[in-house]
Amino acid sequence: MSPAGSAGIVGAIGPEGSSSPFDAQEAAGILERTRATVDPELRRAIGSLPGPLRRIARYHFGWEHADGTPATGGAGKAIRPALVLAATSALGGPQSVAVPAAAAVELVHNFTLLHDDVMDRDATRRHRPTAWSVFGDADAILAGDALQALAQRLLAEDPHPASAAAAARLAGCVVELCAGQQADTAMEKRGPGEVTLDEVLAMAEAKTGALLGCACALGGLYAGAGEEDVEALEAFGREAGLAFQLIDDVIGIWGDPRRTGKPAGADLMARKKSLPVVAALASGTPAAAELAELYGLPYEKGELERTVLAVERAGGRDWAQGQAADRMSRAMHALSRAVPDPEAAGGLLALAEFVTRRSN
Amino acid sequence: MSPAGSAGIVGAIGPEGSSSPFDAQEAAGILERTRATVDPELRRAIGSLPGPLRRIARYHFGWEHADGTPATGGAGKAIRPALVLAATSALGGPQSVAVPAAAAVELVHNFTLLHDDVMDRDATRRHRPTAWSVFGDADAILAGDALQALAQRLLAEDPHPASAAAAARLAGCVVELCAGQQADTAMEKRGPGEVTLDEVLAMAEAKTGALLGCACALGGLYAGAGEEDVEALEAFGREAGLAFQLIDDVIGIWGDPRRTGKPAGADLMARKKSLPVVAALASGTPAAAELAELYGLPYEKGELERTVLAVERAGGRDWAQGQAADRMSRAMHALSRAVPDPEAAGGLLALAEFVTRRSN
Repeated sequence: MSPAGSAGIVGAIGPEGSSSPFDAQEAAGILERTRATVDPELRRAIGSLPGPLRRIARYHFGWEHADGTPATGGAGKAIRPALVLAATSALGGPQSVAVPAAAAVELVHNFTLLHDDVMDRDATRRHRPTAWSVFGDADAILAGDALQALAQRLLAEDPHPASAAAAARLAGCVVELCAGQQADTAMEKRGPGEVTLDEVLAMAEAKTGALLGCACALGGLYAGAGEEDVEALEAFGREAGLAFQLIDDVIGIWGDPRRTGKPAGADLMARKKSLPVVAALASGTPAAAELAELYGLPYEKGELERTVLAVERAGGRDWAQGQAADRMSRAMHALSRAVPDPEAAGGLLALAEFVTRRSN
Repeated sequence: MSPAGSAGIVGAIGPEGSSSPFDAQEAAGILERTRATVDPELRRAIGSLPGPLRRIARYHFGWEHADGTPATGGAGKAIRPALVLAATSALGGPQSVAVPAAAAVELVHNFTLLHDDVMDRDATRRHRPTAWSVFGDADAILAGDALQALAQRLLAEDPHPASAAAAARLAGCVVELCAGQQADTAMEKRGPGEVTLDEVLAMAEAKTGALLGCACALGGLYAGAGEEDVEALEAFGREAGLAFQLIDDVIGIWGDPRRTGKPAGADLMARKKSLPVVAALASGTPAAAELAELYGLPYEKGELERTVLAVERAGGRDWAQGQAADRMSRAMHALSRAVPDPEAAGGLLALAEFVTRRSN
């Protein structure tokens, strides 16, 4: 549907690609305005927590150092709340009414980050030590639990006529996020040949697509959109989310570590069953057999180049790029159903371009 | 306010005590009817979870063995949902409308059990291995997260006019439960002399009183009760919950292990800062000094009798019994404000008697 969309994806992945500076600037502006609008609501919600939980949450959000002194710069980019507000605008609603929903989505996102980091034993998040590594597992689990509760409280206390439908939808999304994380942790315990491409795609959709889709759907609900438009917005966010994950996995193998904040190849060294890897393993090529052999044993120093090459030769990169383009095309199609006017769809488009381009 | 209430507490604690068979039977009947009413709603909610999460939840609820075959007898007593329904009745509402709220409270209770067991490394729950010890930490955390979401979804999808207020209240309660568990885990890391009685009382109120209070408040909301009555019901459940915790701690030291399902003295051996212990430590008596010395070192075989005696001599038992009676009296007073008619208050009274008597 959108040539700009496809160019964006290719631009993000190919070393020769160049992103459109206008779209990137537009997205950056949207995100900045979103943070300015939603941050006070988020800070108010977090501020209502009892002392120790508040401290853990503030640290996690990047607003405080571990010792409780103020910090700056560690917060997330606010893509999900931006999608909520942009979807509300796109459907003709005033953004201001959707701020509680935007904050609720961001709280849910951060609740899952807190818990995922505990389960995955990830030591770093947004270039800082993870909450569990600073405060311990129990505190990180409890802060996550409290953020989920805060998200639901924001919606339950919101008098907007769409708030109950939004709360039900967000709760259903949380179940899907949990199922996605469950599938992810379960898959990591299985052998590299025992995981199918359908399984990892379903897992990525649940882990990444579901909340982006829910964010867009909530924005639609708060604009008073009908069921059909809400579902189309959900599909837009979900497909864009999957495109984002595919590209994220590609960048994790071939990308520039200065741009992504994590060293290229780390996923391969950890034998992660990322989307390009599983596609490569399923290709039935000689390179797939080589990759399976490498993945059957722990990473040894110096193997990285050979592993990257095996994924590439087995078609993992081409498949992921093609899938990402396909998903973005589906996303654009869904968007055009909910928001036929390209002018009105501009904000959502710019955000989708931004997340799949990672020009951040 | 209620001589029967005080007699119940004394009866539960003193070896010479006898409980009123009528009240116990009445409570047993209420609980049985509650389970019959609420179980289908709970099973429907759990049944909506994706496969692996459903299996973990069903195991936790005692409906299935670890291998997925049907099980019986492991489920909880349903005290919290019974309080919801009894409060609705007491305020003149039909119980049937409050079933989603009753199920939501039970889902929240079980979400906290799943997470607490992970944090406390408790290996046994309701005489069976805990979910984390069967399925692993990640699965238990995720199943708990999903149960919190299901609880909120039940309320968000409930068209009852009180559902949004109930959802907000339940979410606020979850924050308090998290704060209570946070305080508990933090306290366990401190020395026995560094914890004040006020701190453990506040922690016990947050961990145990809050959800019993919330259950009663939700029942009131679903009966269309006014703010004042809802607050009185909340106070009733909260004070009864604290009385329950005090008596639970007393039974944990002096009670009959065949009746409680956990060996008497286990808390002392684990150097748990239970309410009678902290009261004893704060008494300034020679026995307090002896207890502090014992608690300063890990438990050694044969010390149990001496430790029990030190808590008793330092007044820990008397204090806990007195506090429990005081809390029950406050509970009865609060109840009489919300439900002046003793006939209408009968169900709530029988349940309060039941939990503080532990004649189960």
